[in-house]
Amino acid sequence: MWVAPNRVIRAAVGRRRGDAGLGTRSWYRGRTIAILNIAMTKVRSVPYAEIKIGDRAEFVRQVTEGDVRSFALLSGDTNPVHLDEAYAKTTPFGGRIVHGSLMAAHISAALATKLPGPGTIYLEESLRFRRPARIGDVLTTTLVVEEKRDDRKFVRFEAQVTNQDGTLLATGHALVLAPSERIEVELPERP
Amino acid sequence: MWVAPNRVIRAAVGRRRGDAGLGTRSWYRGRTIAILNIAMTKVRSVPYAEIKIGDRAEFVRQVTEGDVRSFALLSGDTNPVHLDEAYAKTTPFGGRIVHGSLMAAHISAALATKLPGPGTIYLEESLRFRRPARIGDVLTTTLVVEEKRDDRKFVRFEAQVTNQDGTLLATGHALVLAPSERIEVELPERP
Repeated sequence: MWVAPNRVIRAAVGRRRGDAGLGTRSWYRGRTIAILNIAMTKVRSVPYAEIKIGDRAEFVRQVTEGDVRSFALLSGDTNPVHLDEAYAKTTPFGGRIVHGSLMAAHISAALATKLPGPGTIYLEESLRFRRPARIGDVLTTTLVVEEKRDDRKFVRFEAQVTNQDGTLLATGHALVLAPSERIEVELPERP
Repeated sequence: MWVAPNRVIRAAVGRRRGDAGLGTRSWYRGRTIAILNIAMTKVRSVPYAEIKIGDRAEFVRQVTEGDVRSFALLSGDTNPVHLDEAYAKTTPFGGRIVHGSLMAAHISAALATKLPGPGTIYLEESLRFRRPARIGDVLTTTLVVEEKRDDRKFVRFEAQVTNQDGTLLATGHALVLAPSERIEVELPERP
């Protein structure tokens, strides 16, 4: 039954007529079921001119088992330290850890959905993975505006990712091109 | 019909009894169908002691429509420049672009599956996104060993991502903790 799922995907990822195809039917099926219970929320970007040094934004997200396995399959990063508990137990981590790149993706998500928000273009990132995230961790990504460059509409952020215990897992910086005008989009919101 | 898909996932991501659960049934279904046609391949890591300055490795992967939409949903990075063709046409890119973080994930995948390979721990990354990747692009991630630190088994790589036309899309550096001994794992291989 494809019609309803298809509508759900449209709503969830802003698909429109004229947009590129969604790829395989199998992809439809998996994604659609996965997002059926995701609430939608309107997100507005903060235009470059309204961004001030010291502005902060937070992005909170739990890393699920499915996130780690999906990330492994779509990126090709099938490192057993992320996927194989028996192997991971033999490492200094004593169990599986979340891909560092998934924390990097949360920073990108914070930039794209919180500050500056929709329409932001990612230019540079530098990240240090200090401690591993574990599956089930609720990660908080915090962004702080540290620099603006008016001639190019570039904004430089300090970024950090902490877990539910307040432990600092990743720190770094991100340089983005901020949108010139306010953009509002409907985005899926994961509980 | 869950038994066969379940076996496929075990094979594809090295799942074992005692390993954590695979999460939601919906995730099973989507992922399983998606990886049914992925061949398996044995991958060996290169232990720290065998890595030499100047050693190179390549990781080639095509970015699919499903990759971009899956990445958006699992990371929360639902920036319309990646998902909404109508919006993306109004940007300087003239159409949708691939998440920069997905190129960063390819670099992580190259480190985890090519050099040093399985068991590698990602410590630091710095990346500059020079040009956008497009959906359907065949991306080649190239790693070159530029520095080793014997006391900590750290290896520093120069990394770059190019498309099928040889255009340089992303450049940067990655610092990893290399495995001490050779690890061999079965990994899914995507055509």
